[in-house]
Amino acid sequence: MKYIEGTNVKITDGFWKAKQELNRNTTIHSVWNRFSDTGRIAAFNFDWKEGMENKPHFFWDSDVAKWMEGAAYLIAEKYDADLEAKVEGLIDKIEENQEDTGYFNIYFMVCEPDKRFTGRSLHELYCAGHLMEAAVAYYKSTGKDRFLKCMEKYADYIYKVFVEEKSAKFVTPGHEEIELALIRMYNATKNKKYLDLAEFFIEQRGNNSVDFPVTNDDLPKNDKYTQSHLPARKQRTAEGHAVRACYWYKAMADLAYEKNDTELAEACRDIFNDIITKKMYITGGIGASHLGEAFTVDYDLPNETAYNETCASISMMFFAKSMMKLENNTVYADIIEKELYNGMLAGLSLDGKGFFYENPLEINLRNHIRHTSVCGTDRLPITQRKEVFDCSCCPPNVNRTLATINEYIYAVDGETLYVNQFMSSEADFEGVTVKQTTNYPVDGEVELNFENAKIAKIRIPCWCDEYTVSGEYKVEDNYITIENPKDVKINFVMKPVLMKSNPGVGNNVDKVALMYGPVVYCAESVDNIENLYSLYINKDIKADVLYNGNYGMNEIIADGFVSKPANALYSKYADNLEETKIKFIPYSCFANRGESSMLVWFNVR
Amino acid sequence: MKYIEGTNVKITDGFWKAKQELNRNTTIHSVWNRFSDTGRIAAFNFDWKEGMENKPHFFWDSDVAKWMEGAAYLIAEKYDADLEAKVEGLIDKIEENQEDTGYFNIYFMVCEPDKRFTGRSLHELYCAGHLMEAAVAYYKSTGKDRFLKCMEKYADYIYKVFVEEKSAKFVTPGHEEIELALIRMYNATKNKKYLDLAEFFIEQRGNNSVDFPVTNDDLPKNDKYTQSHLPARKQRTAEGHAVRACYWYKAMADLAYEKNDTELAEACRDIFNDIITKKMYITGGIGASHLGEAFTVDYDLPNETAYNETCASISMMFFAKSMMKLENNTVYADIIEKELYNGMLAGLSLDGKGFFYENPLEINLRNHIRHTSVCGTDRLPITQRKEVFDCSCCPPNVNRTLATINEYIYAVDGETLYVNQFMSSEADFEGVTVKQTTNYPVDGEVELNFENAKIAKIRIPCWCDEYTVSGEYKVEDNYITIENPKDVKINFVMKPVLMKSNPGVGNNVDKVALMYGPVVYCAESVDNIENLYSLYINKDIKADVLYNGNYGMNEIIADGFVSKPANALYSKYADNLEETKIKFIPYSCFANRGESSMLVWFNVR
Repeated sequence: MKYIEGTNVKITDGFWKAKQELNRNTTIHSVWNRFSDTGRIAAFNFDWKEGMENKPHFFWDSDVAKWMEGAAYLIAEKYDADLEAKVEGLIDKIEENQEDTGYFNIYFMVCEPDKRFTGRSLHELYCAGHLMEAAVAYYKSTGKDRFLKCMEKYADYIYKVFVEEKSAKFVTPGHEEIELALIRMYNATKNKKYLDLAEFFIEQRGNNSVDFPVTNDDLPKNDKYTQSHLPARKQRTAEGHAVRACYWYKAMADLAYEKNDTELAEACRDIFNDIITKKMYITGGIGASHLGEAFTVDYDLPNETAYNETCASISMMFFAKSMMKLENNTVYADIIEKELYNGMLAGLSLDGKGFFYENPLEINLRNHIRHTSVCGTDRLPITQRKEVFDCSCCPPNVNRTLATINEYIYAVDGETLYVNQFMSSEADFEGVTVKQTTNYPVDGEVELNFENAKIAKIRIPCWCDEYTVSGEYKVEDNYITIENPKDVKINFVMKPVLMKSNPGVGNNVDKVALMYGPVVYCAESVDNIENLYSLYINKDIKADVLYNGNYGMNEIIADGFVSKPANALYSKYADNLEETKIKFIPYSCFANRGESSMLVWFNVR
Repeated sequence: MKYIEGTNVKITDGFWKAKQELNRNTTIHSVWNRFSDTGRIAAFNFDWKEGMENKPHFFWDSDVAKWMEGAAYLIAEKYDADLEAKVEGLIDKIEENQEDTGYFNIYFMVCEPDKRFTGRSLHELYCAGHLMEAAVAYYKSTGKDRFLKCMEKYADYIYKVFVEEKSAKFVTPGHEEIELALIRMYNATKNKKYLDLAEFFIEQRGNNSVDFPVTNDDLPKNDKYTQSHLPARKQRTAEGHAVRACYWYKAMADLAYEKNDTELAEACRDIFNDIITKKMYITGGIGASHLGEAFTVDYDLPNETAYNETCASISMMFFAKSMMKLENNTVYADIIEKELYNGMLAGLSLDGKGFFYENPLEINLRNHIRHTSVCGTDRLPITQRKEVFDCSCCPPNVNRTLATINEYIYAVDGETLYVNQFMSSEADFEGVTVKQTTNYPVDGEVELNFENAKIAKIRIPCWCDEYTVSGEYKVEDNYITIENPKDVKINFVMKPVLMKSNPGVGNNVDKVALMYGPVVYCAESVDNIENLYSLYINKDIKADVLYNGNYGMNEIIADGFVSKPANALYSKYADNLEETKIKFIPYSCFANRGESSMLVWFNVR
C-alpha cells in the first residue's frame, strides 16, 4: 500500500487541527528562538573560534535540519514568508560553506577538521541524514531544488568515501538515520546510487570487522547499543538505543519495500512484534532505561524511571508507517495511533513551548526530595517540561511530526482507499476524494464522504469491540470494507476501559490502567491526593466522562476507593478502604499545572 | 530497670545456642582471617610505610576493636586460649605503640601524623570509642585491666584536648560512638570524668558554631547527616546516617538514664517512635537509602533498593535496649526481637562466614542484567553475602552482637524479674535463678522455672494475640505477671499471619507480608517461579508450617494464586489467576542457595 502524501491531505478541524495550529503559531517559533539563544543557528555562519561561547556540538546540524524539515511542511500547507526566509537563509549558509567535495558538517569543518569520518559515534552521518531529509522535504514542499542539489552532492561524496575509497575509519554510522534519509533521497531523485548507498550501510551493519572493537570514541563498547550485533537480516529483537534502533528498523523496512526483500521484511516484522509484545509501555513509550537510552530485557518496564524518549516514540511511528506500507496490517496503524495520542504527544506541553525528553509513567514527588541528609540524589526524570535541552533532538522532531500528521491518515492500494486514522480532514488523490468529520478522540463518531472511490477500507481500532456502521459493509482483516462508498457514518463506541499488563511486567501485576478509546489516562496529585498509591479503581468501572477544552480531550471522574490513613506502620492485614472519586486526565496532558505526582497504573478493587 | 549482664546468663540450647556456637566455631575465626588477609591486624605493628600495600584506613582500628570485643565475650562464656592469645597480642601492640600522652590511632600516628584531630569526619573518636568498648568488655570478661588502663589514659587525653584545651579543629565527632563508649567506661571505672566527657560531646552536638560549616573534609555538608542539625534535646526525628544516628540516640538514652534527665528522655522517646512508626522496614531494617546510608523522609521504604545496613539494625538493638532500661516498655523489647530474628540476622549467612552490609527486601535478578546494550548498571544491593568488605564494619559487629544475645533476655527492677526474650537459658542474679526452655521461634511454648523470685513479668510479644499460661497470672502493661513464680508454662500461639503496611508506604499498598511469630518470611525464586511478582497469597491464609533444621526455623508452604502467563502485553482487565502453592522461608535465610530473586511483600487475593 501507499500512504497519500501530505500535499494531498489537509487536516480541517478538531484535535489535530488545533495541534497543527499550535505548532505553526507557537512551537516552531519557540524552537527557533531557543536554537538561536543557544548558538545553533549562528553555528551555520562557520565563524566559531576556540575561546568563543556556544561551541558547536557534533549533533547540532541535525537539530536545525529537523527544524528546517518541519518548517518546510508548514510552508507547503500554508505559505509562510517568515519561515521560508529562515529556511532560505540557512540554505544560503549551507551552500556557501559546503566544501567543493560535497562535504558539509559544522563541527567537523569548524571545530575538529582533522577528525572527519574518524569517529563512528560522532553523529556525522546522522547529521548528513537529517540534512538530506530536510532537503527532500523542502524540495517536495516548494519545488525548489537548491538544498536538494547540495545534499545530492554530499551523498555522492559519502558514496565515494564509504563505498569506493573506503577511506573512513568506520563502515557504518554509530547513530543510524542516513539509511532512511538516503531512501527518501532515492524516492525524490530516482537516483539509484542513493538506494545503493542505503543498502550498503544496511547490509554492512553488524557484518564487518572494522566497526568493532570500538576504540576511537567513548561510547559503550557494546555492539547491541548500535544494533551492530548481527547483520540486519539476522536480527529478530529490538536492542540498544531506541531512537537509533527504530530509525534503523524503518530503513530496513523501507529497503525491504523497495527491493521486495521478503527475508528483510521478516526480520522487520519479528522486531516490530518483539517491541509491541515485550518492550513497549502502554503509552507507546519505548527505550525503558536512561542508561544507553535503550531497550532492555523482556517485560522490563518500570514506570517511575521510564526513559521513553519523545524521539523514540516518533521513530516508532516512522517504523510502524513503513511496516504498514510493507504489509498493510492494522496492528501498525494501531501503534501509530497509540503514539499519536500518548507517547509522542506527552513530549509537548499544552502551551506548545515545553518539551519532555523523557516520559515516565509515574512521578512520586517524594522521591525527588527523599535524600534529606546528603549531597546527591537518585537519577529520576525531570518533572516539568523545558523549552530546550543541551541535547535538544526532541523539540524539532515534534515540529516535523506535528506538521506531517496528515500523512498518516489515508493510503491507497490499487482501487482501495484506506482510512487508517480518524481526524477531520480532506484528501484528494488521483480523482478520488474523501472528507472525514469527527470529534475523535473525544468520541468515536466518524462521518466519511467519498467521491469516486471503488472500495473503502476503514480501520477498526484495536481498542474497539463495539461499533455501528451506516449502510452495508463487511469486515476484512480489521477493516470495515465498503464497496462504492458514498456517505458513511461509523460510531466506534468509546467508553472508559480498564487495562492490565502481561504478568511478566512485575511492577504492574494486580494493577490497572484506564483508557478511553486510544487515549491512556493518568491521575495527578494536583487533582487528587498526594499519595496516589493509596487509590484503587473500582473494577466495575463507573465513571463520568467530561470534555475539557484545554486538553481537547475528555477528563474522567471514576469511582474508586482509598486506603484509610493509619497510625501503625505495620498491622494485621484487613481491608480498610473507603469510597472516593478519582480524577483522571489524558496521560499526554500530565505536568501542565506545576509539579505534581502522577500515576498511570493503579490498584483495583 | 536493669538488664542482667552476660556473665550471669547462659544460653543453653535452641536457636540462639546454635548461632552462638556458629559464632564461636566459625564466624569469629573467619572475620579474624579476613582481617589478617587485608592487613587490618598487621596494621597494629605500626610499621606501614608509603609504597607498601594495605595502607591502614582511618576506620580500621574500629574493625579490629569490635572483633576484640566479640572475642572478649566469647572468652568469658567459655575460656578460649587461642582467642585470648590473639586479644592479648593486640593489647601488647596497643600498649607498645600508645603515645605517652595517651593518644592511640594507627592511621593518625602512621599515615597522617600531622592531621590529628583536624578532620571531623575521619572517624578518629569513633575508633577511640570502639577501642574503649573492647577494653571494657575485656575487663569485665577477664578481670584484666591492662587494656582498660590504656583506654583510660586515652580518654583522659581526649578530655584534655576537647574540654580543657579545646585544641581540636572540631568540637564533636562526625561519626558518633565515643559517647556511648564513654558511658560504658564510666560504668566500668566509676570515674565521673568519662560521664562528663560523654555529656560534653552530647550537649555540644548541633549546639556550636565550630563544627559547621564543614570545610575540612569531603563528607556531605549537611548537618542532618551527622545529627548535628539541632541540639540533642531538641531533636524529635531520626535523621541522617542510620548507624551514626542510633549509636548517638543510644548514648542520649544512656545519659538520660545516668542523669535522670527527663527532657533528654523525651527526645529519645520521640525519636524512637519516629523510627518505628515511619522509618523502619518490617524486618527492622533502617536507613533506607544508600546515599548517605541514611534515614530519609516518612514512609519512604522502597524494597529493592533498601540499604538497611546490618550495623544499623545492631545499633537499633542498642538504642532499644537503652530505652528499655530507661522506660521499661515492651515496645522496645519487641523491636529488639524484630531485629534479632530479621534485620540483624539477615546480615550473616547460614554457614557463618558471609555477610551482607545491605539487606534489601526484594531482589529482582532481571534488574541486575537489564542493561544489555550499555556499559553501566543501576546501583543495586549485592545479591550474595561476602566474607569481608573494604568497609567491613558489619562482620565484627555481628561477632559481638551474637556473643551478647544473652544480655537481652532478663532484667530486674527491685523485686521483679523480667523475662523479655525467649531463648533456652539460665540466669542467676543475686540469689534469684530462672531456667527457660523453649523452641522459640519454631513454636511459642515457653517453660520457665524460677527459684527465689518474688515477681516475674514475662513479656507478651506484640505479634501475639492468643496465649495460654499455666497457673494464676494477671496482665500488666503487656507483661504476664506472676507472684512467687515457680514452674510456669506459657504458649504464645504462633501461626502464619498476613501483615500490611501503612498506606503511606506507597509501594506496599495492596500487598501483604507473611509472619510467623516474630519471624518475617520471604519467598525466593529458587523455591518458586522466577517471576515472584505474579504470585498472590490467599488472604484467608492456609499454610503448612514445616521445621527446617538448616534454618533452625520453619518454612511455610502457603496457598496462593499465580497470574496465568499471557501473550499480549496489554489486554482488557480480568482476573486470570490459578491456584498455586508458595514456599516461604525466614527472611533472614535468603541468599543462602546461590543467586535468586526474593520478595517479602506479595499481592493478596
